[in-house]
Amino acid sequence: MRAGKFFFGAVLGLILTVLLLVPGQSAAIGGQEVDRSMVRSETGAETFFIERSEDSLFLIDKIFKDDRESHIGFIVMNPDTDLSHSITVTLVPPEGSDWDVKIDDIEDDEANSVMDETTELVKGRSYRIEDLDADRTIMVIVMVNYLGEKEVTEPLTITASIQDAKVFSASKTVELKTTEQNYFFIWIGLGAALIGLGFAFVTARALYKKVVDDKKVNEISGYIARGARAFLNAEYKVIVIYIIAVVVFLGILVAVLDMNWKLIPAFVIGAIFSATAGNIGMRIATMANAKTAWACKDGERAGLKIAFRSGSVMGLTVVGLGLFGVSTLFFIFGDVDMLFGFGFGASSIALFARVGGGIYTKAADVGADLVGKVEKGIPEDDPRNPATIADNVGDNVGDVAGMGADLFESYVDSIIAAMALGIVGFAAFGGELMSGGAAGIATVLPILLAGVGIFCAIIGTLFVGAGGEKTSPASQMNMGIWISAVLMAIISFIILYLSFGEFDVVLALFLSLVAGLAAGIVIGKVTEYYTSDDNKPTQKVSQAATRGAGPNLIAGLGLGMLSTTVPVLAVVATIIIAFLLSGLYGIALSAVGMLSTLGITLATDTYGPVADNAAGIAEMAGMGKKIRETAERLDAVGNTTAAIGKGFAIGSAGLTALALFAAFIQTSNLDISQFSLMNPFIVAGLFIGGLLPFLFSALAMNAVGDAAQDMVEEVRRQFRTIKGIMEGKATPDYEKCVAISTKGALKKMIVPSLIAVVVPLVVGCISMEALGGLLAGSIVTGFVLAVMMANAGGSWDNAKKYIEKGNFGGKGSDAHKNAVVGDTVGDPFKDTAGPSLNILIKLMSIVALLFIPLFLAINGIIG
Amino acid sequence: MRAGKFFFGAVLGLILTVLLLVPGQSAAIGGQEVDRSMVRSETGAETFFIERSEDSLFLIDKIFKDDRESHIGFIVMNPDTDLSHSITVTLVPPEGSDWDVKIDDIEDDEANSVMDETTELVKGRSYRIEDLDADRTIMVIVMVNYLGEKEVTEPLTITASIQDAKVFSASKTVELKTTEQNYFFIWIGLGAALIGLGFAFVTARALYKKVVDDKKVNEISGYIARGARAFLNAEYKVIVIYIIAVVVFLGILVAVLDMNWKLIPAFVIGAIFSATAGNIGMRIATMANAKTAWACKDGERAGLKIAFRSGSVMGLTVVGLGLFGVSTLFFIFGDVDMLFGFGFGASSIALFARVGGGIYTKAADVGADLVGKVEKGIPEDDPRNPATIADNVGDNVGDVAGMGADLFESYVDSIIAAMALGIVGFAAFGGELMSGGAAGIATVLPILLAGVGIFCAIIGTLFVGAGGEKTSPASQMNMGIWISAVLMAIISFIILYLSFGEFDVVLALFLSLVAGLAAGIVIGKVTEYYTSDDNKPTQKVSQAATRGAGPNLIAGLGLGMLSTTVPVLAVVATIIIAFLLSGLYGIALSAVGMLSTLGITLATDTYGPVADNAAGIAEMAGMGKKIRETAERLDAVGNTTAAIGKGFAIGSAGLTALALFAAFIQTSNLDISQFSLMNPFIVAGLFIGGLLPFLFSALAMNAVGDAAQDMVEEVRRQFRTIKGIMEGKATPDYEKCVAISTKGALKKMIVPSLIAVVVPLVVGCISMEALGGLLAGSIVTGFVLAVMMANAGGSWDNAKKYIEKGNFGGKGSDAHKNAVVGDTVGDPFKDTAGPSLNILIKLMSIVALLFIPLFLAINGIIG
Repeated sequence: MRAGKFFFGAVLGLILTVLLLVPGQSAAIGGQEVDRSMVRSETGAETFFIERSEDSLFLIDKIFKDDRESHIGFIVMNPDTDLSHSITVTLVPPEGSDWDVKIDDIEDDEANSVMDETTELVKGRSYRIEDLDADRTIMVIVMVNYLGEKEVTEPLTITASIQDAKVFSASKTVELKTTEQNYFFIWIGLGAALIGLGFAFVTARALYKKVVDDKKVNEISGYIARGARAFLNAEYKVIVIYIIAVVVFLGILVAVLDMNWKLIPAFVIGAIFSATAGNIGMRIATMANAKTAWACKDGERAGLKIAFRSGSVMGLTVVGLGLFGVSTLFFIFGDVDMLFGFGFGASSIALFARVGGGIYTKAADVGADLVGKVEKGIPEDDPRNPATIADNVGDNVGDVAGMGADLFESYVDSIIAAMALGIVGFAAFGGELMSGGAAGIATVLPILLAGVGIFCAIIGTLFVGAGGEKTSPASQMNMGIWISAVLMAIISFIILYLSFGEFDVVLALFLSLVAGLAAGIVIGKVTEYYTSDDNKPTQKVSQAATRGAGPNLIAGLGLGMLSTTVPVLAVVATIIIAFLLSGLYGIALSAVGMLSTLGITLATDTYGPVADNAAGIAEMAGMGKKIRETAERLDAVGNTTAAIGKGFAIGSAGLTALALFAAFIQTSNLDISQFSLMNPFIVAGLFIGGLLPFLFSALAMNAVGDAAQDMVEEVRRQFRTIKGIMEGKATPDYEKCVAISTKGALKKMIVPSLIAVVVPLVVGCISMEALGGLLAGSIVTGFVLAVMMANAGGSWDNAKKYIEKGNFGGKGSDAHKNAVVGDTVGDPFKDTAGPSLNILIKLMSIVALLFIPLFLAINGIIG
Repeated sequence: MRAGKFFFGAVLGLILTVLLLVPGQSAAIGGQEVDRSMVRSETGAETFFIERSEDSLFLIDKIFKDDRESHIGFIVMNPDTDLSHSITVTLVPPEGSDWDVKIDDIEDDEANSVMDETTELVKGRSYRIEDLDADRTIMVIVMVNYLGEKEVTEPLTITASIQDAKVFSASKTVELKTTEQNYFFIWIGLGAALIGLGFAFVTARALYKKVVDDKKVNEISGYIARGARAFLNAEYKVIVIYIIAVVVFLGILVAVLDMNWKLIPAFVIGAIFSATAGNIGMRIATMANAKTAWACKDGERAGLKIAFRSGSVMGLTVVGLGLFGVSTLFFIFGDVDMLFGFGFGASSIALFARVGGGIYTKAADVGADLVGKVEKGIPEDDPRNPATIADNVGDNVGDVAGMGADLFESYVDSIIAAMALGIVGFAAFGGELMSGGAAGIATVLPILLAGVGIFCAIIGTLFVGAGGEKTSPASQMNMGIWISAVLMAIISFIILYLSFGEFDVVLALFLSLVAGLAAGIVIGKVTEYYTSDDNKPTQKVSQAATRGAGPNLIAGLGLGMLSTTVPVLAVVATIIIAFLLSGLYGIALSAVGMLSTLGITLATDTYGPVADNAAGIAEMAGMGKKIRETAERLDAVGNTTAAIGKGFAIGSAGLTALALFAAFIQTSNLDISQFSLMNPFIVAGLFIGGLLPFLFSALAMNAVGDAAQDMVEEVRRQFRTIKGIMEGKATPDYEKCVAISTKGALKKMIVPSLIAVVVPLVVGCISMEALGGLLAGSIVTGFVLAVMMANAGGSWDNAKKYIEKGNFGGKGSDAHKNAVVGDTVGDPFKDTAGPSLNILIKLMSIVALLFIPLFLAINGIIG
């Protein structure tokens, strides 16, 4: 029960720590200290025409909003007539005196003040602009400040009149009211996160209570669980050093450049939350494998329930902790920028989990196979092989902890990116801009939607295993996912309607969200199509193996390359649809939509390795044919869900990185033309960005080879020095192998990890345009390469399995030997290099976003 | 002697045809019909300050220049003082009456006319602008038209005065003179092209005169030569259909959209020239192989001379025909836009040569090996194998004709791109813009530099073989290349100085040129470093083969990916240096610089396959140990030059595509901000562009597999049905195999070829921004992928050879078998997919450039 207590303690401790940090009723929004009990202003916006004249028009443009002080911009366009015009803008303040309203500035269409061209009638109240040319546009900036203490909803009326020979006037009423609605959104997000964590806790406790009455099963499972913990403990030591280094670096930047100090606690909390989610997920998975195997004696449904429930603990812990972290930090500090620190923390852990875990799992795999299977001739997963536990640990390290950290990063980063873009505003259906500052609806909407997603995921989860014994495990899980997705679509539409009212805007935002959901499904299905041996592509790879290892490899590489087409088109379609409907904000929203029901999609991902281990344990522990076959059926379903999950992880990484990239471009505050393709620094950045995924993959693949060598030597040493291993009389030193693999993985991940962090930092210091190019180049190439590697690797794996099923000569045939070569190449492709690229593109984007103040300072010094 | 006559006839015919097209003394420059005998104006430009006032300044900006009518823009910036200003701009016309000079327009900094704000003092001569704000900038556009008949050099003085409270005035003299200098540049280019062709012809004739007195040698060489011709003849049939289709399509566009009709003849001539250059090169190469082998009995130097001389025929034919085509067409039509048609023609042939040739060579190779070596157990290159000749033909088709067409395309396209960018102008050292319309120096400079390059290449060529018998073949060729390069640098510096005078400008242009030359050398050397078995990286790949085929493949893929780093950085450095010094024009100039001495670099490339074939012939014909060893030494050098040549081809393709891309962005006339990374169409384009190289590679690699299958069946059929083959009594039907491979290659290249042409067309019709993104994405990913595939393939090949030399167990060991798997995968990497990407990125860029009028028309209709 140690792990159960750990889970409870960890989550409770984190929650208490964070809640204790809440500094009473005081908080800062937009960098400004305010009394949180105070209300904040809130505006609606729409296009309107001035009455009484068809050839004059008024447009409400951007509404900038800080805390209680807002700026509202009216665009006044002089109609195209030959008459000379003069405009008088008059402000009628609201009845109550709690509002301080005045005309702050009048600007031309290039945002230059033209106040000196106006005649002041009443200071701050009424101005006249003479001789306004036809078609000339001016913007009247009105400053609104609420000085009162309590919420008010009475409308503030601003009247503007245009006068010409005909003498007409028109007015527009803007409703200004104070509201706590945005906090309501955050409370819902926070509540959903806690409910998700609570559901995960209850599920985990129920799983821990299941007793497995088989010593051998418990023993094997125990080895794996201890090995996994050993890896995590070793990894934590590296992570702590890394965190200290980053904190020191950030501390220096805070001191020297006056950078936002809140980034530091946010970074540390992000790292701890991600690590905790991974730790919990892996503990549950390594505990549930034995219980799944044991439950299989009660039938498929019982086994499915255990395996899936353990996955849902992982899924809900990831989304629960992710959303809890984001919403709590935003609640306390009211500052979106500092959340980049949280994202950076999550990304850093993901880097270690994916790169380190990827190297670990394949080093152990290759080491175990080369000495055990090839040299000693003992079967796979034989307990006599010292590297067997490391090998099994590796599966969990890669597919559970690595995948979890990867998606924790995507989940958190997509929400943060959407919030950051929400500040700047989004182009709604008609093209108008609409926004609401650091606490505007657009900013907190992602938190609300994520919260809704957690509810939907929980409800979907309850349906899995609820179907009868005759419903296949795949159908049960699919039903759960679909229920969640449909529910999510319905509820989010309702919420959008309640928040925005206008159907055009609601539809635009809703379709952006749904575009992301749909892209996730498409990419997952394409992955399944190309990598499943039920379909022609992978069968062709199998067939190529009959002609030789070379043809098998060429066929797999060709398949991998070809399989990138539809995922790329799906991402392209999502970008275009989301942008046309809702601007850059829409792109981020599509990523939020894709990841909203992560609570259940990650559960099905994690189900895979649990069922896989269960089948392995059933075989190793000799639990009998019936149980083994039941577990194997569950495992077969796991292969499909794992393939879909991999596609989903890449797709979400691509969209999340794009959202972060959009936030970077938007936040960097550079001129649009500086990000032009005509700028050679952009092109240079594109080249470097296009190179990095290749370089990173090369280093990751070479690392597997090198780390495997150390493992091979250790396994050989144990067989040589520990007497009685081969006879099963002596227990091999499993932990030594785990340590070797751990050490090798951690050592080898340093160079690629440094590249991911240091290259964008250095390039950004030289040129922010080049950094923009670098991000774009790396996202494009990284995405395509990641899809290619994952699908080629998955296909080689299943092509080999297809032959093992008895096709093209079956196990032991030449075709099988050739297919094994493909699988060997595919392993680091799909489990090390490919998934690491997910992290690379997100991490570099968040580094770029986080260090904008540094880049601006250094670029300012240089040129 | 048939081929000799063909060479003579082809070149002479082409030259006569083109010269006959010269329509007397009339030509069109900038779309305007003018009398070519007339002179044209020409201006210098510099930054200058108005005398007598330190706080006022004048800048000369763009000088637009058509034929004899030029527009000169003066930027007048009002100094930052509080005084009110009025400027009077006065033009003092030159003494002679042959000049028509007047102020055409006065514009603000957004190029809007402000003529209505001025007071006209003397029409076209003197204007006053009142109340010029501090820091406001205006541009005075002066139109200059030379009406005279003969050349004049007297300066035209334009005086502008700025008046304020202090009353001061300042003047600037702009020298306007008429000159034939630009035509002089073209004449030099044309002369150099003809001299290059003449030198090639003389060399070819001398080679044809060498008699090989060995029936067997002649017989083998004859088979290869006939096979090569058979492939070309079949390819021509497809090319003719393609040309007709394109001509019809262009014809429709000319009729419907009023597109430039001259594109059509230019396209046809470009295609014919490229095909002719490839045809001549391949004929010479397939003739010289036997003569090289025969010459080896007189020693290494004699063999080197023959092989290298045959290469120099190819090299000089490519540059001679390329430059002849460009300069003649420009001379006749005086229109840069129509040259895009010439480039498109050259690119189309390159597509067929590289993709078709690449599929051909590997299909024949695999087919020959699978049946001959594996099934029948006869050695490689055994005349009993029906596919042997196809295999040998394939080497020539890929490495000679394919490489030649590839570099013909790069050579021609880089010159055209530089000319197109020369019209728009280049930013010189200080950042000022300077240009000279359709016949300005910047426009014709690339022709001159290319011409100089041909002279330098010829001189360098003369030094190869001039060294003593003790100088190694590699040193001799290196010496030739270095002599050419150094000579090129010196002469181009002198020419730039004579053309531009000002040291800053000269240095900027010179260094841009040299940056390209240097990048070419760096990329070549990196290729050599990674792929040569003298160095650690490839030896490590060899060593990995001892651990299995999988490790060998992973090591090779890792090496390929890693090897992309330095080439990418070299391109990035070139882009940045060239742009900072000379703007977008500088990037194109660096490509011209890289390719200027192509006459000799391509000679060393072509030397490789000739020496390779010579060694093969020496062995097959049993010419004795001494000759064979001499030929093999020459062949070993060829491997190195081939590797360097491959790197050079990729590097030049990358720079050329970038130059075309710059020309596209520049010519498309869209707003810079439309090409911003914030534009989702750009990002969507980047994704599609990033995808295409993967898709293209996948199709190319799968095509090899499919085409090889047909070959295998044909070879099996011949062994089965033709009695006496195995006993050497019956001659196999070589031509049937050649036909099968040809047919397969041509059939399989259709889909990838269509993608390369159709995708940019379709995307451009939807959105030109997306097309810009597509080009950038494809160039980046295509370049990195091409380097990776070429180097991984080269490394696997040499890793196998390293083992065959006796390392790691030598021939027949497990390591060798594993290395063969790597080589099998590497073959389509390095000889089919990789080189095809060179074409893909250039072809898509030229398609984009050519069809801008179509895109503009359709975008105009849609949005």
